[in-house]
Amino acid sequence: MNDITHLLNHHTADLGWQRAFYEDLHEHPELSGHEQETAGRILQKLADFDCEVIPHIGGHGIVAVFRNGDGPCALFRADFDALPIREETGVPFASTQIRPGPDGNPTGVMHACGHDMHTTALLGACAILDTHREAWSGTFIALFQPAEETGTGANAMIADGLLHRVPRPDVCLGQHVMPGRAGEVQTMPGAQFAACDSIRITIPGRSAHGSMPHNAIDPTFTAAMIVIRLQGIVGREVNPNDFAVVSVGTLRAGSTNNIIPDSAALVLNCRFYDVTVQRRIYAAIKRVVEAECLASGIEELPTFEFFGHGELIDNDTGVFRTVRPVLDSVFGAASVDATRTTVSEDFANIPRAFGVPYLYWVVGCTPQGLWDRAVAENRVKEDVPVNHMNTFLPEYGTTVEATTKAAAAGVLAYLSR
Amino acid sequence: MNDITHLLNHHTADLGWQRAFYEDLHEHPELSGHEQETAGRILQKLADFDCEVIPHIGGHGIVAVFRNGDGPCALFRADFDALPIREETGVPFASTQIRPGPDGNPTGVMHACGHDMHTTALLGACAILDTHREAWSGTFIALFQPAEETGTGANAMIADGLLHRVPRPDVCLGQHVMPGRAGEVQTMPGAQFAACDSIRITIPGRSAHGSMPHNAIDPTFTAAMIVIRLQGIVGREVNPNDFAVVSVGTLRAGSTNNIIPDSAALVLNCRFYDVTVQRRIYAAIKRVVEAECLASGIEELPTFEFFGHGELIDNDTGVFRTVRPVLDSVFGAASVDATRTTVSEDFANIPRAFGVPYLYWVVGCTPQGLWDRAVAENRVKEDVPVNHMNTFLPEYGTTVEATTKAAAAGVLAYLSR
Amino acid sequence: MNDITHLLNHHTADLGWQRAFYEDLHEHPELSGHEQETAGRILQKLADFDCEVIPHIGGHGIVAVFRNGDGPCALFRADFDALPIREETGVPFASTQIRPGPDGNPTGVMHACGHDMHTTALLGACAILDTHREAWSGTFIALFQPAEETGTGANAMIADGLLHRVPRPDVCLGQHVMPGRAGEVQTMPGAQFAACDSIRITIPGRSAHGSMPHNAIDPTFTAAMIVIRLQGIVGREVNPNDFAVVSVGTLRAGSTNNIIPDSAALVLNCRFYDVTVQRRIYAAIKRVVEAECLASGIEELPTFEFFGHGELIDNDTGVFRTVRPVLDSVFGAASVDATRTTVSEDFANIPRAFGVPYLYWVVGCTPQGLWDRAVAENRVKEDVPVNHMNTFLPEYGTTVEATTKAAAAGVLAYLSR
Amino acid sequence: MNDITHLLNHHTADLGWQRAFYEDLHEHPELSGHEQETAGRILQKLADFDCEVIPHIGGHGIVAVFRNGDGPCALFRADFDALPIREETGVPFASTQIRPGPDGNPTGVMHACGHDMHTTALLGACAILDTHREAWSGTFIALFQPAEETGTGANAMIADGLLHRVPRPDVCLGQHVMPGRAGEVQTMPGAQFAACDSIRITIPGRSAHGSMPHNAIDPTFTAAMIVIRLQGIVGREVNPNDFAVVSVGTLRAGSTNNIIPDSAALVLNCRFYDVTVQRRIYAAIKRVVEAECLASGIEELPTFEFFGHGELIDNDTGVFRTVRPVLDSVFGAASVDATRTTVSEDFANIPRAFGVPYLYWVVGCTPQGLWDRAVAENRVKEDVPVNHMNTFLPEYGTTVEATTKAAAAGVLAYLSR
Repeated sequence: MNDITHLLNHHTADLGWQRAFYEDLHEHPELSGHEQETAGRILQKLADFDCEVIPHIGGHGIVAVFRNGDGPCALFRADFDALPIREETGVPFASTQIRPGPDGNPTGVMHACGHDMHTTALLGACAILDTHREAWSGTFIALFQPAEETGTGANAMIADGLLHRVPRPDVCLGQHVMPGRAGEVQTMPGAQFAACDSIRITIPGRSAHGSMPHNAIDPTFTAAMIVIRLQGIVGREVNPNDFAVVSVGTLRAGSTNNIIPDSAALVLNCRFYDVTVQRRIYAAIKRVVEAECLASGIEELPTFEFFGHGELIDNDTGVFRTVRPVLDSVFGAASVDATRTTVSEDFANIPRAFGVPYLYWVVGCTPQGLWDRAVAENRVKEDVPVNHMNTFLPEYGTTVEATTKAAAAGVLAYLSR
Repeated sequence: MNDITHLLNHHTADLGWQRAFYEDLHEHPELSGHEQETAGRILQKLADFDCEVIPHIGGHGIVAVFRNGDGPCALFRADFDALPIREETGVPFASTQIRPGPDGNPTGVMHACGHDMHTTALLGACAILDTHREAWSGTFIALFQPAEETGTGANAMIADGLLHRVPRPDVCLGQHVMPGRAGEVQTMPGAQFAACDSIRITIPGRSAHGSMPHNAIDPTFTAAMIVIRLQGIVGREVNPNDFAVVSVGTLRAGSTNNIIPDSAALVLNCRFYDVTVQRRIYAAIKRVVEAECLASGIEELPTFEFFGHGELIDNDTGVFRTVRPVLDSVFGAASVDATRTTVSEDFANIPRAFGVPYLYWVVGCTPQGLWDRAVAENRVKEDVPVNHMNTFLPEYGTTVEATTKAAAAGVLAYLSR
Repeated sequence: MNDITHLLNHHTADLGWQRAFYEDLHEHPELSGHEQETAGRILQKLADFDCEVIPHIGGHGIVAVFRNGDGPCALFRADFDALPIREETGVPFASTQIRPGPDGNPTGVMHACGHDMHTTALLGACAILDTHREAWSGTFIALFQPAEETGTGANAMIADGLLHRVPRPDVCLGQHVMPGRAGEVQTMPGAQFAACDSIRITIPGRSAHGSMPHNAIDPTFTAAMIVIRLQGIVGREVNPNDFAVVSVGTLRAGSTNNIIPDSAALVLNCRFYDVTVQRRIYAAIKRVVEAECLASGIEELPTFEFFGHGELIDNDTGVFRTVRPVLDSVFGAASVDATRTTVSEDFANIPRAFGVPYLYWVVGCTPQGLWDRAVAENRVKEDVPVNHMNTFLPEYGTTVEATTKAAAAGVLAYLSR
Repeated sequence: MNDITHLLNHHTADLGWQRAFYEDLHEHPELSGHEQETAGRILQKLADFDCEVIPHIGGHGIVAVFRNGDGPCALFRADFDALPIREETGVPFASTQIRPGPDGNPTGVMHACGHDMHTTALLGACAILDTHREAWSGTFIALFQPAEETGTGANAMIADGLLHRVPRPDVCLGQHVMPGRAGEVQTMPGAQFAACDSIRITIPGRSAHGSMPHNAIDPTFTAAMIVIRLQGIVGREVNPNDFAVVSVGTLRAGSTNNIIPDSAALVLNCRFYDVTVQRRIYAAIKRVVEAECLASGIEELPTFEFFGHGELIDNDTGVFRTVRPVLDSVFGAASVDATRTTVSEDFANIPRAFGVPYLYWVVGCTPQGLWDRAVAENRVKEDVPVNHMNTFLPEYGTTVEATTKAAAAGVLAYLSR
């Protein structure tokens, strides 16, 4: 443990390229499934290291295998796709990309979830581990996953033969930057990230001229009743001691001003820590949507399509007990307890496919002055940009150092000689 | 009167081209403001007649002036734009056009409002009047208007100098096909088509990840409350003896499944016969939208943009008394009383600009068997396609004859020798 | 006609008792079905006249038959029950009564609908007709009806043998004071007062402690969704050219703060001029209520109970043509055209039971200065108290004279020698 | 500990009176603040014991002080009021009482929360402790509290001098029967029962006849929008990891079918474990109610009145550590861990007033067969009656024995020699 700490504080790997690499990724974000250039940049960097690179797994997925003699095998995963959000950070390397969005409309594109940082950090850890092969033995797998935001990238890599194309790891690790004091590494055993699903719902109606509501069955009115009743499910049907989120991601109805449309489309996003709650909520959503259609006098049935499934991240207690002391040693007071978060991730699909235990952690990335002031003034909610906001931007220096070291520390907790 | 009836029943004008012309228009519909090819077809047909043609008035607007000695001047108007609707009539000449819609998304395009029929009929009336110049004297103006669906075409022609480029008419006439027994010509004095406005409303919110509703101010929820409360205005704030329609044309919120968006956009369509009611409703809409934003805790103000204004069509009693007996004579039992309709039109802007009286009428276009059965079984609402539905299609034969004759009859009611 | 006008302007009947009688009624209002003392006061007054009095018809109903030789028979009806409203007029003779209301709770009682004026006026007409028997021949029936507010009094009198206990009239007449310039008599042929029904709806739920919503099915939430959707029916399912009102009269849910109740109760009040609209609305109400219960996950069915049916008042054109010239002669410029009103009445049940034509009219009762100013400033809605408001009070002098004379004039239009 | 267990298993106290006493209480329930006869029955029973009885503290509150030499002082509290619920248990001793409820309306009255059991058990513990004075020394205070359901009884006793009229205890104890396997004693340290408040809200409107919605401002519609938006607060404004309940206890609007009322009244019941959440929710409720009034066009302000405050029950870890081993010894496998519950209690006001630590626990009271079957079939929610349901009834034998022994055991954990 002390060896790891000493190594990470005194390593000789060159990390000077990280800033430019990060800013380049940040300025050129790519939407899920379209990460061609980003993958190219990663491959280019990996060429600097002594490793076997396997590109194009499940689309733009990449695995780099660092073999270093006998010993266990540890996999570390980073994701690298971006979001359909127009950046408003104002930094010189802010994204100005405009791309067709998931709905076909032009949209800004932005690394608003910090995946650029995850990738930069994992490449940094590669540099350290590649430089200091004397410090460890075994196999280190760096896995770069596309399409995390759509919840499809991990499964696509698995479906494309991941399990047969890389050595089976003994443990999988991963990390995410989130609001919090920059540089703090937050770990916990047990359920940390929620399970989630998205549901695409089509609400049938009958179209008519806007002046003739009596000839129409107005799907927008039905959709509005449903949007409202969804929160009635959360507030009335869930045990208040349980956790459940039902959010409307998109609502679309109509294409012109003077026609009552013939359908409306909702996309929901639902999160849980408990499968019983999940089943109850999904049954309630179906019941509410169908009954509201009935109430509007629609005979046609609404349709439901589930997608974007995210598995629960339920950290293994054994891995936590192995990694946490190393993080405590490396980060000191900045190694802290995590709290449960409401977001979801498809990270866990990978260890689940391999049938191995895992640990996922969070690294705070909010500028420390801002964070400390916000906490002191009880204004975290108001003042701290969170992931997916168009002003979200990790504090570069502290965060890149912490994520790079944490990745290397986690791997070394298993592979250190 | 008897002369007019005799003429219209025994005219020698060639109308054999009408069917192909109509089906050509129907198969190649163009959205409001983009009617270039349609205008080309009209101009080509007008070249067959002895008239002065003035193209490109207010975009694709066209006026044909038929001079025939001394006498009064009568203007007849037809419109020729189509709608962003994907046709489902199944006829061989159905439209398969796909174009960028008003919202930038690709959309089907369809003559779902019968403007192709209006134009074919007015050109037919031109043929009759051009052929039988012995039967009338004075000036006949055939006005072909674009962009009726957006409520902008009439005003664009006026703004482009219509009043100075054509003789001042003594009367303006127009017609619209609508559900009803095919061939029935429906006239009435007084308020017949409603006044209307469209209102684009932006509802501010605060974006956050879908799993963190407490960090967001959900504009979709606010929009849903507004959609519901709008009908509360209609049902609670309007004198039940008054007429008011508030329809939601479009509702847009969000661009991806797992982000609570930062705004939602509503487009309303409102109709009235009375300006006091109109003012009261607009004040109520503003009040409701602002208060629902307040209720959601939004500090930013919603925005309101009015467009697509349609004037009341309030038929002149004198013109009615002049034209109706002619229609009675020509159409017999198929000349019937109209009932007030809820739709709107920008036709009246033209006579209003000239300061002259007008009459606008409706011609039934539902296949007679279907109509009679639907009436007998009290299933008009269920069985009869109405304007702006993707299955709306006038019965060609009866309707084209009735609209052609009615247009000629109306003009001859003023110009007949 | 001139004779009638002369008589009404120079009659010698003593009407000096009217003010005290009116104020006595006003100060001692009685709820529908409990009009014992009011009936006593009417009987006492009728004892002054030469007529046959038949009390206790259908509860507290009274008929006075004035026979005066051969000739036609005219019936005039006045109602005399009051409302569960706490009076706030501030007049010295304001009601201070507190009684158990329809729901068992104590309530103020008030003549907030002017029935005290109707009764005072009809008794005044009795006095004039009784005094001036030389001016008419035939039979005059003065009918005093209880329980109009509950829509049950007319039917109760009919069920109790009214048709067999009084001569069959040739015509039935009645009147109502309403907002309008005091003294103006407003008549019209055709549909004037709406048909109505009340509907008592019980919404089932499942009770639980207030802290355990997940163990309950909250009927108050279901009721709220229904209340909102009812206006969706009005705004979306009724042809905007038709007339329909759906109001919630009462909503009751729960009996204590910390228990989610096991049911909620709604009472609706619905009005129409057209039976097709009525049927459509009732089907929609049933559909909406049942579907909202389904949406809440309730398996038990809601219940519906119709009551308080009010028939359309559809004035006979023949009676209008007979009575209106007399009113024009008597009232001059104060005999005006009525406009359709949204309220309902059970008056028409009486002529319908007899199978005879009828005319019902309205007399303005708003102090003239207040009315004229409100009209001038377009503040009628804000400034003029309407029936059923706790500040509603007819201007005594002008109104009592107009209603007394109008009643006598209507009867004399048929019975005048 | 073994001594206590031995004593409770072999005590010689006569408890044969408990069943008749319990059934008598159950058959004659009294509403909060009206517990005169119940207090009389308790006083009569206390007369059997060697203790100082202080009646009439804060209304019908009673304290019995059992002095037994030197030593610590332990207070045990039981409550004894009932609820405005019509009993449907069908047992021979079911309540048939009808009383004026909190709203003035007649209501059934029922021990639907098990307070009759609490009181019977505490009196049983008094019998055991009074009979076996050899087993303990110190002071035992049995406190019988009225008006728990209204959240006012504990404070009323404190306000009436409780602190100066009884010795200061070293610890306070209490218990509640709830759904769960009959006889299981459920204990936990920390926050166990939620903090709560009730809020009475008056929503202003403007009254008009039911047929004239345009002259009214309909408070029932406003109330419905508020009821729905309250769940929007829970579902959208609370961190999903936090706990918050907002339930509508009562909603009242209108007094008759055909009048739109001039106000509506809501009573809410809100629960929290965290004061920050509480503050946020109360601010949101105020914001929503005021904005919905604005949206309806009401100028008058709604009013808010807080009542029925319940403090958090936050069990002291030290007391838990003292009492739990005794319960484990006495109850064996039936001494289990409690889970946090959503209900509230005013018990904690008493130890808080004295400034002493406390433990409150729950005793399961569902018949064991029913409970085991419901758990096995995952039908606890559907099949097990909960407190405040009209079918809630503890299984007598197992429950009375467990609650009696648990009360004595808790006291003896402090006073046992």
